[in-house]
Amino acid sequence: MQKDLKQKLIDIVGEQNFTAKIIDMVSYSYDASEHSHRPDAAVWPTDTDQIQKIVQLANREGFALIPRGAGTGLAGMVVPQKGGLVLDLCRMNRILEINIQDRVAVVEPGVVYEDLNRALAEYDFFFPPDPASGKACTLGGNLATNAGGVKGAKYGVTTDYVLGLELVLGDGRLMKTGTRTMKTSSGYDLTSLFVGSEGTLGIATRITLKINPRPPATATCLAVFDELKSAGQAVAGIMESGIIPSVLEILGKETLIAINQNTDLNLPVVDAMLLVETDGWTQTEADFQMSKIMDVFEENQAGEVTRAQSVEQAEGLWKARKSAYAVLARIRPNFVLEDITVPISQMASMLEGVNQIAQKNQVEIATFGHAGDGNLHPQILWDNSDPDESKRVEKAVDDLFNLAIELGGTLTGEHGIGLSKAPYMSLEHDPVALESMRSIKRIFDPSNVLNPGKMALDD
Amino acid sequence: MQKDLKQKLIDIVGEQNFTAKIIDMVSYSYDASEHSHRPDAAVWPTDTDQIQKIVQLANREGFALIPRGAGTGLAGMVVPQKGGLVLDLCRMNRILEINIQDRVAVVEPGVVYEDLNRALAEYDFFFPPDPASGKACTLGGNLATNAGGVKGAKYGVTTDYVLGLELVLGDGRLMKTGTRTMKTSSGYDLTSLFVGSEGTLGIATRITLKINPRPPATATCLAVFDELKSAGQAVAGIMESGIIPSVLEILGKETLIAINQNTDLNLPVVDAMLLVETDGWTQTEADFQMSKIMDVFEENQAGEVTRAQSVEQAEGLWKARKSAYAVLARIRPNFVLEDITVPISQMASMLEGVNQIAQKNQVEIATFGHAGDGNLHPQILWDNSDPDESKRVEKAVDDLFNLAIELGGTLTGEHGIGLSKAPYMSLEHDPVALESMRSIKRIFDPSNVLNPGKMALDD
Ligand SMILES: Cc1cc2nc3c(=O)[nH]c(=O)nc-3n(C[C@H](O)[C@H](O)[C@H](O)COP(=O)(O)OP(=O)(O)OC[C@H]3O[C@@H](n4cnc5c(N)ncnc54)[C@H](O)[C@@H]3O)c2cc1C
Ligand SMILES: Cc1cc2nc3c(=O)[nH]c(=O)nc-3n(C[C@H](O)[C@H](O)[C@H](O)COP(=O)(O)OP(=O)(O)OC[C@H]3O[C@@H](n4cnc5c(N)ncnc54)[C@H](O)[C@@H]3O)c2cc1C
Repeated sequence: MQKDLKQKLIDIVGEQNFTAKIIDMVSYSYDASEHSHRPDAAVWPTDTDQIQKIVQLANREGFALIPRGAGTGLAGMVVPQKGGLVLDLCRMNRILEINIQDRVAVVEPGVVYEDLNRALAEYDFFFPPDPASGKACTLGGNLATNAGGVKGAKYGVTTDYVLGLELVLGDGRLMKTGTRTMKTSSGYDLTSLFVGSEGTLGIATRITLKINPRPPATATCLAVFDELKSAGQAVAGIMESGIIPSVLEILGKETLIAINQNTDLNLPVVDAMLLVETDGWTQTEADFQMSKIMDVFEENQAGEVTRAQSVEQAEGLWKARKSAYAVLARIRPNFVLEDITVPISQMASMLEGVNQIAQKNQVEIATFGHAGDGNLHPQILWDNSDPDESKRVEKAVDDLFNLAIELGGTLTGEHGIGLSKAPYMSLEHDPVALESMRSIKRIFDPSNVLNPGKMALDD
Repeated sequence: MQKDLKQKLIDIVGEQNFTAKIIDMVSYSYDASEHSHRPDAAVWPTDTDQIQKIVQLANREGFALIPRGAGTGLAGMVVPQKGGLVLDLCRMNRILEINIQDRVAVVEPGVVYEDLNRALAEYDFFFPPDPASGKACTLGGNLATNAGGVKGAKYGVTTDYVLGLELVLGDGRLMKTGTRTMKTSSGYDLTSLFVGSEGTLGIATRITLKINPRPPATATCLAVFDELKSAGQAVAGIMESGIIPSVLEILGKETLIAINQNTDLNLPVVDAMLLVETDGWTQTEADFQMSKIMDVFEENQAGEVTRAQSVEQAEGLWKARKSAYAVLARIRPNFVLEDITVPISQMASMLEGVNQIAQKNQVEIATFGHAGDGNLHPQILWDNSDPDESKRVEKAVDDLFNLAIELGGTLTGEHGIGLSKAPYMSLEHDPVALESMRSIKRIFDPSNVLNPGKMALDD
């Protein structure tokens, strides 16, 4: 990056909010995916006005801008594939307002998910999307990836909670979308267009979120299945019962083995385990729903079914689920975490398909995921110094996407497209839809300065 | 309309699906608003292919197309202000699929809201938006207006339930958006862009909807307030209690008087009445929530509070609410039903403001609405043969919109913009947002054949 350009950036954000140090450039070269590429510089803007000036400068000088939250993304979304300037939003991290009567929180994009939830807990409210990375990831990142989590089946995902935005568009204009009311039918829904747009259309500088009361009563239960298929059918059976669990997670055999090898949880090694929670304002309500779900488990050949008898016991069960990603990540030098999502009726077929794909391609795949909304995370483990294994992994990923789409599913339920899934966009989206996305990109970011190379938008 | 154009349309849809009869043109000149203008002809297409051919013809020949559901809209959205061809979608009314495991229904746009709900009731499921016009209005109309209803506070509105679409765009291309999975983070959210787009971007030919189980237990209660302000504060207090009622409706004094004059319901004449329902899987749950709400009523100076002791009694209470629009419509020769929506904390101010606006402008305004999501329907009653009164009504409408926006609200919570609120778009939306909406319109409908003149898009 040229010296005068650096100076212009420093003039905007101040010396203390600019870096081109090699150590920072390395940090900013990757996220939680297997992609990496260094940027030329990075800034920590502290207000909207600075961001607007930076975007205007980028348009004049023609450099790429990569908005960045905590960099926990799993699809290479913040990897500066073409170099350019990282806009790290972590210093814009104020909770501007919590209004319980309005069911609204207004935040800056760099607020960490759990910081908001901690503030809301005082009022017995919460912001439901609940990504497993909640301790680190930012609300701006959640917004731009449409993040989801364990509460998805009952409480939905980020897009269900974004009411309004303040944005700096790719061309440097400032725009306000949406409202702070619970609903509106006024004009096109520009807000939703920016949810899941991966920093390619605009930079969110202020986010108005709907928040939810947290029902105080829960019931937790764990069921083991000797056959993957039965577990999948049990999930579909729960939906049919009408009960929508507040959590419904699945852990496959390889995941259970890995957890046992790395923790003292001592889980039964079965083909699949389902972890389920129901909630309500009364214990009667949570228990009634759980009893219905236990009926479904019985109808579907569940083995042992364990009701948590205390909060501590329930927390133990959750620990198992929450450790999955981390323990799996340690097994082999490399891993890629997929995020396919299928209609619930196809859950059993998808689970069986994942195993077949692993066998066929001789790769190691451990599966877990948010069964309640059809979202599976097959985690593929390998060693990328072995070119043959790498090729087989590539083929397995290809097979996974093809199967998911064949079953009426989507490439990604919550992690986004980024670089990882860009080559597969046309597998899921029809050509007119893809062309429409590109046209929309041109409206808001005509010079393609914002996060170029992502989401197959510049092909 | 020229003879050869007529013939071309008949060639596409068949003689039996075309009309230019004067009686039909009169029927198609209005909706449930005060606007009217005749079209030149109308067709009843029976499949997507016919619609695509018609849109292509309209692009070639340069005539306007007005997609129409049941014509129950309240903002002049289907009024052919510039003439043209009405596309009445009522003959595309098949429920294509109900899949309970997937929580999905796939429908053609002409399916009547209640027909879908009747089909879903067999499975104890429902499609929650619940507009009061449900017996007549179509799902295509609900989609294109982002319809809402009495269940909004707890269950959300149409946009929360639209998963995917098949559309014929304004330029005649066919496009599929979204998925049938419970969630996705794959590409821009094109689906939501079409929700509430009032037939100005594309014609929905197939709609994939998320559906909900219907909790079997409910509790119903009615509370009267001697002061409007207390009722507004009670609504805010309920939100603060964390309980989200499945229904929370408000009826103002003028509305109560009108209902009493026109029915034998014999309601107490108070400043405001709140009708509230809670639900759950167990009666304990519904009752617990209701007891919390009754505490809030007490804290806010409610007068009489009546718990419905039976389903029949609850239905009697609902009858009152449901008759409001119709009885008010009969009082004076003309009426306009507004649809402003404010943050819940502003409910008391808005309710008082409506009364002040009525007094100041010497017009009759009766108010009711969906208090649970901040949506008020001030119904202004007048005689349009009195030019002075008409002027005062115009001023009152203007005052209402200004106050709603001042309080952080929106012009319309569920009815849409259409012709009625087009002049006020810039009051709510910033210039960049408006310009963005127009740019989006140009992507999908470059020749402006779809529903021109609506939503302030061609200004
Ligand atoms: C251990 C682990 C567990 C995870 N579990 C989950 C899970 O359960 N559910 C889930 O959904 N994800 C999960 N993720 C993925 C990741 O945490 C989410 O995608 C999260 O939303 C990313 O937030 P971030 O702040 O790290 O964003 P980043 O990774 O920094 O950025 C993500 C995208 O958002 C854009 N962006 C960031 N801020 C803005 C802004 N203000 N305006 C515009 N664009 C912006 C970036 O340009 C990028 O495209 C997990 C990741 C890890 C490592
Ligand atoms: C007594 C009464 C009570 C009402 N109560 C409510 C209520 O509680 N909540 C509420 O939200 N509304 C209510 N409304 C308003 C109205 O019923 C809704 O706006 C409804 O969604 C309109 O449906 P429709 O089929 O009549 O659509 P129409 O009025 O025919 O059309 C509405 C809009 O949708 C477009 N459209 C229709 N079909 C398609 C399609 N397939 N593709 C693209 N665009 C299409 C039209 O072009 C138009 O812009 C009420 C109306 C009345 C008269």
